[in-house]
Amino acid sequence: MTQQSQAQQSQALPVNSADIDAAARVLAAFAVRTPLLSSPALDERVGTRVFLKPEMLQRTGSFKFRGAFNRMSSIPESARGGGVVAFSSGNHAQGVAAAARILNMPATIVMPADAPLSKRERTKAYGAEVVLYDRDREDREAIARDIADKRGATLVRPYDDPLVIAGQGTVGREICEDMAALGVAPDIVVAPASGGGLVAGVATAVKARYPQAVLMSAEPEAFDDHARSLRAGKREPHASKGRTICDALMASIPGELTFAINSRLLSQGITASDAEVGIAVGFAFRELKLVVEPGGAVGLAALLAGHIEAAGKTVVIVLSGGNVDADLYARLIN
Amino acid sequence: MTQQSQAQQSQALPVNSADIDAAARVLAAFAVRTPLLSSPALDERVGTRVFLKPEMLQRTGSFKFRGAFNRMSSIPESARGGGVVAFSSGNHAQGVAAAARILNMPATIVMPADAPLSKRERTKAYGAEVVLYDRDREDREAIARDIADKRGATLVRPYDDPLVIAGQGTVGREICEDMAALGVAPDIVVAPASGGGLVAGVATAVKARYPQAVLMSAEPEAFDDHARSLRAGKREPHASKGRTICDALMASIPGELTFAINSRLLSQGITASDAEVGIAVGFAFRELKLVVEPGGAVGLAALLAGHIEAAGKTVVIVLSGGNVDADLYARLIN
Repeated sequence: MTQQSQAQQSQALPVNSADIDAAARVLAAFAVRTPLLSSPALDERVGTRVFLKPEMLQRTGSFKFRGAFNRMSSIPESARGGGVVAFSSGNHAQGVAAAARILNMPATIVMPADAPLSKRERTKAYGAEVVLYDRDREDREAIARDIADKRGATLVRPYDDPLVIAGQGTVGREICEDMAALGVAPDIVVAPASGGGLVAGVATAVKARYPQAVLMSAEPEAFDDHARSLRAGKREPHASKGRTICDALMASIPGELTFAINSRLLSQGITASDAEVGIAVGFAFRELKLVVEPGGAVGLAALLAGHIEAAGKTVVIVLSGGNVDADLYARLIN
Repeated sequence: MTQQSQAQQSQALPVNSADIDAAARVLAAFAVRTPLLSSPALDERVGTRVFLKPEMLQRTGSFKFRGAFNRMSSIPESARGGGVVAFSSGNHAQGVAAAARILNMPATIVMPADAPLSKRERTKAYGAEVVLYDRDREDREAIARDIADKRGATLVRPYDDPLVIAGQGTVGREICEDMAALGVAPDIVVAPASGGGLVAGVATAVKARYPQAVLMSAEPEAFDDHARSLRAGKREPHASKGRTICDALMASIPGELTFAINSRLLSQGITASDAEVGIAVGFAFRELKLVVEPGGAVGLAALLAGHIEAAGKTVVIVLSGGNVDADLYARLIN
């Protein structure tokens, strides 16, 4: 495909690189401009050149602030008094809560009762009201919509919203800027996927600048709905009723908007087992000196486990967050 | 003092900014160019603008690689066969071992038997031979000199060497480059001190570009020889026979060369208790998502504890390393 025809195709997608440029302008004064890191120890371990995008260094400890703030900045003044409501296992919760505080809006977050304690506490610390639900028996979307109706609040979706995807896309835009400054082109770019908003945004930004780059979603083995859906060419849920230590990556099926993008721009979905994720969290502690939460480490886990054919390639791994309870972290690094 | 007279004075010191420029050229292809980070959570916590220089992201997990590689690159080809010998509690050990591997030289490291296990193991992993000694009863310098004599090895001092100080000074040079790019001038710059090589190099680089900046060494309360010596105007040992969790900062007296620099360029020495250091390590885990070892966190600890008059100032804190055993780390973050 030529660059031109690719650009034309991209215009038909729900988000394009101009949307991401606009999000970058909205976020400039509020989001952290995270660096692009490299590690001699990692390069030696995997035998190729790797760059890391450390989104645990982002405001709230994950990339989620980007999408939430970009979306919420678009809420008209007249509607801000009603506040916002969101459902989230924790990172979107913090992103929305932090954005709401900056924008001076009340925020209510519907969180699963088994979300990590640190994520619940941090969400409250940003001033949000937290409403807990039972992950196995209650419908979080219904609870959130009910609150939105009663309070006149705006529902801030975690991924299936063009402004959220565009906000997450600034991660990819920054990767491209920093790679260009280094004079290096990425061959493979990997980002974790739950609903798929991050990887959709990253893919949109990266493919606009590096059309030859191969984009991959990374998921826990037991929550492999992107891998399945990309193989099938249509949205499919994961088969598992299992759990994973990757609490941030437990969506059951790709988003509609995100999959419209990902099905066109991603080459494949890769997975890593919880054991492999644990090894990656420990590697990041010992060798990278970065605190990565399990869900944030799934791409690194797949790379370290040899699930990515990386030999001779320049690989970029998005480490999407670092919000992990201290007791789980202590177990994973020991 | 005018800038010119300060520059003239600096020329009399053992290391000047041209030496640091030269070190930067030597290190360019081998050291990691660490970023300058900021954290909204930290700025909010201390109520001012803070930048962090995260040297745990450096090759070997601390700044020490810089000085070791710069020094060892100067060893003539004819002397490289004899290898190098060094004494170190762990971070200089790894820096020397990693530099020796790159330069294809044998390395022997004299380490205290109570050095953190991870530091001993990582030093061996770089291919160095490790010789343990009893910190309380044996003279590590004598052991190292004996090895140097027997093997024809070059002794690589941990701090009292102009090329080592110049290598550590590249930390300050990078801080200046990144601050200049942001259009921000540092008011206060803090770096941990054991023998004082890092803070001497950083002070030399920062004062050359920002003569008005206030430079401070940071130490554990029980190992406050820089604070005492700066007050006294001459090298004085700390009074303590105590221990500290800051295993990297247990030198008993400032170096001669380093103090010649530090007594001229530092405004004061600040300290933090082990309890305050533990809080800083936990803060870095929860809020910064950076793995900082106790000795690397002592400047941050002093800032968080309110020991630095930071209100309204732009503060730069050097986080000097992240090599900490998992079991101690688990205790500190819980």
